[in-house]
Amino acid sequence: SFKDRGSSVEIARALEKKAKHVVCASTGNMGASVSAYSAMSGLKCSILAPEDAAFVKMEQILAYGARLYHIHGDYTTAAKMVEQLTKRKSLYMLGDYLWRREGTKSVGFEICDQMKTIDHVVCPVGNGTLISATWKAFQEFYTLGWLKKLPLVSGIQSSRCSPVYQDFSGKPRKRCVHTVAVAIECGDPLDGKRALEAIKESGGICVTVTDEEILKCRELLAQKEGLFAEPAGAVALAGILKNKKSFRKGSNVVCLVTGHGLKTPRTGVKGKPIEVKSTGKRFLKVFKP
Amino acid sequence: SFKDRGSSVEIARALEKKAKHVVCASTGNMGASVSAYSAMSGLKCSILAPEDAAFVKMEQILAYGARLYHIHGDYTTAAKMVEQLTKRKSLYMLGDYLWRREGTKSVGFEICDQMKTIDHVVCPVGNGTLISATWKAFQEFYTLGWLKKLPLVSGIQSSRCSPVYQDFSGKPRKRCVHTVAVAIECGDPLDGKRALEAIKESGGICVTVTDEEILKCRELLAQKEGLFAEPAGAVALAGILKNKKSFRKGSNVVCLVTGHGLKTPRTGVKGKPIEVKSTGKRFLKVFKP
Repeated sequence: SFKDRGSSVEIARALEKKAKHVVCASTGNMGASVSAYSAMSGLKCSILAPEDAAFVKMEQILAYGARLYHIHGDYTTAAKMVEQLTKRKSLYMLGDYLWRREGTKSVGFEICDQMKTIDHVVCPVGNGTLISATWKAFQEFYTLGWLKKLPLVSGIQSSRCSPVYQDFSGKPRKRCVHTVAVAIECGDPLDGKRALEAIKESGGICVTVTDEEILKCRELLAQKEGLFAEPAGAVALAGILKNKKSFRKGSNVVCLVTGHGLKTPRTGVKGKPIEVKSTGKRFLKVFKP
Repeated sequence: SFKDRGSSVEIARALEKKAKHVVCASTGNMGASVSAYSAMSGLKCSILAPEDAAFVKMEQILAYGARLYHIHGDYTTAAKMVEQLTKRKSLYMLGDYLWRREGTKSVGFEICDQMKTIDHVVCPVGNGTLISATWKAFQEFYTLGWLKKLPLVSGIQSSRCSPVYQDFSGKPRKRCVHTVAVAIECGDPLDGKRALEAIKESGGICVTVTDEEILKCRELLAQKEGLFAEPAGAVALAGILKNKKSFRKGSNVVCLVTGHGLKTPRTGVKGKPIEVKSTGKRFLKVFKP
């Protein structure tokens, strides 16, 4: 749902600006959200998806009646194309920009509402909008006196695509390669600087996790908590489990799980169905409780 | 979420009964829900799925760590196998039975909470548990004086599998054939009699809709309301639009949308992505706003 929080504000703003046709680059989740809100609002909608976007995410975008452009390039290329297009044409640009943050920050408000003390908040980091928006929310509530203590905000990236981590560690940026956490595969994050600020100001950690660690934690979330996430959604938990020392025992840690497992079929779920005949003894033998 | 309402009560009951291993027949949605709650509760879980169960639903069940038996037969066969199994083995049976209804009826409570006047409630009918549980909720609130007027409860089935409709109309039952609304493809509905009672007692209608009407309404839900449903989830709306005369103008009609679109990939979503090169003029020509 966290994409919808931003989309509702962005679409409201587009309507205020008398936009007729909105356009957005997306690996799939933001595109689906924007398409749904556009459909409700009677806006035309075009989505530019990178070549490794998951099929079901593209199908969801099409279901809402949006036009979908599947580009030969990555997310960053798609985002740049959208920026170019909106300069030339009467299209309204949506994405990880100022207005979206104002909606997304309700994630932070909700955490404040639900918890008395928050010691840590841990986010997967792609474009960096979620983590920076959440940090903005905490700062606002703190300024208003509604939050007694600012939490440490930590950002976790995939080791295969980690520009924010590289900036944080003062290392040169490496080129991104394809990761199982496609939804946060952003080589040139739009809110990268703000994400970095949030982590540094709050005193949180910024670390990376491997694809194997992500899939392992995704399994753990499903099999211990009953939460089925897409790989990108399990990145924050993987970061916590890899860096336990950074989280004092007994502290309240919020772990953001950002995408549903149904968003990425055929991605690392182990096991397969057992084929059984519906009659005869062969079936009954299967159960050995 | 409506499956989870029933699963939470069923799993609580299984724990109370010191069950170690639960078993359930499912076309996929109930199985995923039961598997998730079992995982959370530390129960072993086995799901029997009919041969036309959607791949992603089976993958979701496996993700939660349940054992999945893919049988050569339909849902009714799977349900009978589960009943036989639980007679012989120390397995605890879950499904559309008494305890589930007590959880599912919170759908009715929530409708009462959110609306001052409810004239109609329209449900897709598979096993008949949702409609009969919702009706039970209304009766309870009415008895307690919390609901002034009982709504008319209507049940909609697929024309390719409509045992409750056939019973309602006094026609002989026809054998079910495969429908696009797989999640309600129940040839011998466990709560069929209760569903029939709910419809007759309340004064609602019981009608069928074709696969084409279902897919059309599913498109409408996505493109006008921003709600992406699986085909079975669009059945109630299809029933309403096909029988407008039964719904007085200005009346408050609740239309239950029961399953998410991501549950059934490659099922009737129109359109396909437009392939574009990421550089050159060819791309920019695509947009003609």
